[in-house]
Amino acid sequence: MSRTRIHNLTVSLDGFATGEPQSAEAPFGHAGQRLHEWMFATRFWTLGGDPGGAADGGGSEGVDHAFAQRHSVGFGAEIMGANKFGPPGWQDDPDWRGWWGPNPPFHTPTFVLTHHPRPPMEMEGGTTFHFLEATPADALATARAAAGGQDVRIGGGPTVVRDFLAADLVDHMHLVQVPIVLGRGVRLWDGLEALEDAYDIEAVSAPSGVTHLTFTRRAVSST
Amino acid sequence: MSRTRIHNLTVSLDGFATGEPQSAEAPFGHAGQRLHEWMFATRFWTLGGDPGGAADGGGSEGVDHAFAQRHSVGFGAEIMGANKFGPPGWQDDPDWRGWWGPNPPFHTPTFVLTHHPRPPMEMEGGTTFHFLEATPADALATARAAAGGQDVRIGGGPTVVRDFLAADLVDHMHLVQVPIVLGRGVRLWDGLEALEDAYDIEAVSAPSGVTHLTFTRRAVSST
Repeated sequence: MSRTRIHNLTVSLDGFATGEPQSAEAPFGHAGQRLHEWMFATRFWTLGGDPGGAADGGGSEGVDHAFAQRHSVGFGAEIMGANKFGPPGWQDDPDWRGWWGPNPPFHTPTFVLTHHPRPPMEMEGGTTFHFLEATPADALATARAAAGGQDVRIGGGPTVVRDFLAADLVDHMHLVQVPIVLGRGVRLWDGLEALEDAYDIEAVSAPSGVTHLTFTRRAVSST
Repeated sequence: MSRTRIHNLTVSLDGFATGEPQSAEAPFGHAGQRLHEWMFATRFWTLGGDPGGAADGGGSEGVDHAFAQRHSVGFGAEIMGANKFGPPGWQDDPDWRGWWGPNPPFHTPTFVLTHHPRPPMEMEGGTTFHFLEATPADALATARAAAGGQDVRIGGGPTVVRDFLAADLVDHMHLVQVPIVLGRGVRLWDGLEALEDAYDIEAVSAPSGVTHLTFTRRAVSST
């Protein structure tokens, strides 16, 4: 069964998944790289997010890696928000093709939610960016149809994740909490009161100092 | 050296240390007892918060207990906010003597910060409530003088904790994060951007599902 999953979404202690202001030079605003240092230290990252990669760039292979590499396993499509695809104003730049160069790390159809759709962009390595103006449910139906039976990743940013959680469309979420207080940025948790009612939640702290939280949708008993 | 410490301060994933509205019937508002179930299950709690207690009420003796019982060890005074001492409006009730009955669990001088000071109340078991209108620094000086060389506990609620953290008066904080999303209430983290700069932070998740975070003030190297 194709599931909808979120992986490696990282928040500060005060629940911000990005700082501010976001720009081409600082995609995460004043947070800089502090939210993701845990991931940069993993083998997942040094191999470029490719679990089958032959290169050996080192990197940790403990709990941080074990969680991180799930980002790349089992997905047939991604949905991301406009703020993940580019810095503020990318919609006005007809040449903008995302942050990731000619061969983006998605390798699947990738659906960008935007109020300014444009024609699809076929990239190297299997990634094609499609631009959609759609509700979360409709975007998910479109991505699901393109995923070839595999899972659909909700790739962020936090506003999109929140919208999909609020619409009760997420089967599994892996969240990483970093012990910093950002103070400002985009909050993940707003509008998600009682989210725990729908999920089994586990927490495990890592030697790196972060805490991994997993939210797995509770099985609904058939009656 | 007498230190200023915070223990067993519990927050939701979204950083609320109490729900709303707070009342005599629901001191933590819509949070109910959900923030503190981890603590009720410990031996610390079944012994009434007295680590030398002879009664045996059972309770867990793992990491939750190990952290919880530190609340009672080494303190000579407590400072609390008006919202911890009683429900909204207690200032208008001349007979209100706190939530805790004739023998409160503090057993030391206990300073209640309020804009409506009243004469001290001597209770059983060593607790005397003093009512102060003072800045955090002045309140701490007063409590320190009364603590007989032992530590001073900042007992909460979250507004008071935040004020003492913002004033850079806290040497150690033990925080417990419970995997629930409260959505509303009183936030701990507001105004504390970059708090991590002053502290060594550890996180450890517990089998009960909560994560314990400790903030220990960094040693300042003498030059």
